[in-house]
Amino acid sequence: MILVFVGTAGSGKTTMSGAFGRYLEENSHSVGYVNLDTGVKNLPYPPDVDVREDITAWELMEEGYGPNGAIVESYDRLLAKLGDYASRIARLNEERDYVIIDTPGQMETFLFHEFGVRLMENLPEPLTVYLFGPEILRKPADFCFARFFSLMIDLRLGTTTVPALSKVDTVESIEDYRKFLDDIEYLTARLKLDPSTQGLLAYRMCSTLPELASPTRLLYLSAKTGEGFDELETLAYEHYCTCGDLT
Amino acid sequence: MILVFVGTAGSGKTTMSGAFGRYLEENSHSVGYVNLDTGVKNLPYPPDVDVREDITAWELMEEGYGPNGAIVESYDRLLAKLGDYASRIARLNEERDYVIIDTPGQMETFLFHEFGVRLMENLPEPLTVYLFGPEILRKPADFCFARFFSLMIDLRLGTTTVPALSKVDTVESIEDYRKFLDDIEYLTARLKLDPSTQGLLAYRMCSTLPELASPTRLLYLSAKTGEGFDELETLAYEHYCTCGDLT
Repeated sequence: MILVFVGTAGSGKTTMSGAFGRYLEENSHSVGYVNLDTGVKNLPYPPDVDVREDITAWELMEEGYGPNGAIVESYDRLLAKLGDYASRIARLNEERDYVIIDTPGQMETFLFHEFGVRLMENLPEPLTVYLFGPEILRKPADFCFARFFSLMIDLRLGTTTVPALSKVDTVESIEDYRKFLDDIEYLTARLKLDPSTQGLLAYRMCSTLPELASPTRLLYLSAKTGEGFDELETLAYEHYCTCGDLT
Repeated sequence: MILVFVGTAGSGKTTMSGAFGRYLEENSHSVGYVNLDTGVKNLPYPPDVDVREDITAWELMEEGYGPNGAIVESYDRLLAKLGDYASRIARLNEERDYVIIDTPGQMETFLFHEFGVRLMENLPEPLTVYLFGPEILRKPADFCFARFFSLMIDLRLGTTTVPALSKVDTVESIEDYRKFLDDIEYLTARLKLDPSTQGLLAYRMCSTLPELASPTRLLYLSAKTGEGFDELETLAYEHYCTCGDLT
């Protein structure tokens, strides 16, 4: 089964890929690792498939590209090898119990670039885990933003997407996050109290969430303590056994 | 009045900032330019405020950061100077007719990082233009994604956001894009024909658009030919004169 970690730079995708992979291996599963980040230096896992064999952002910067240009150009060049990557990952998936895919450092490179979107279209039933850190959640509207972003990934990639708060070991009280993330009715009620234009939009968007999002469980993960890893394993198992019903 | 160009790397923000600024200057307006991209090498406009005076992604890469890490770290360090940037931009806005803000190369650095979000909260009534290129629109669900992304920016930044298809000079028939982008009913009807899970989600999301999005006009822009610049100017003018009613 294929697990794809998606999230912004700094959300902890690479650390999570390594830590969750080790957890699975310690529980007697065979794991394949795929690195899709052309700009990463060190990986905490041994990649079986690694885009850096073909191209790195570093090489392109030596050619004169800036960091942003180098990142985009690297995926432009990888596009020609898309079919090759899709077959290598599919083959790895046949050999191992799990394949963990660590996506580009900048999430938009994956969501907006043809390389990311078409690769996902060509993989057998991947489960996407959308990682976001507690630092992006400063006010009630931000929780609505995070929940909707998970839907946006689902819409864009066409894969079942599970939202996951990462780095939960760094927050004082996880319950403060849970009540806004797990209980859409509570969040909607809180948003109703915000009279600003932003608050009104958040309220209206949040009100549509129950009809738009499947009642997916949210995950609360820590790559440091392993918190939530058992739930992620269960969810991945259910995804493949019950074809997407993750309630 | 403050105009902010937001979009993914490669959507044409920097080129558009230069081209639209020149257009305004040719029409006898005074224009201030702000560059918020720590990773850009050359700018097609003379910046009045430039984050690279404080920090560049290049310096950080010399310190040992990878390209993604350097980009994120640069905004972490800029956070201490947030108030200073907000006042300099506000002052520039008092001196000039227009202030054009060119945002970080990677859109997520602006949308997910505290620097971008808090800067926008501290600016007087900025109008955000969300630029997306025709290359991200491959199938009907993608049009729904682009329309929703504009709402997501609105939700995140709390500013009025206008979606704008960029690089329209590169498309053969703009009408093929217009019918999906301008007419939500047509798009929704087309999405209904797609029986996939992705199609169903797109259909449901698209159906909620009329109640969520204000009936903002879409823009069709070309930095190369200047197409749509008159409409953008009118829209910016209306934003400041009628406080956000851009129908």
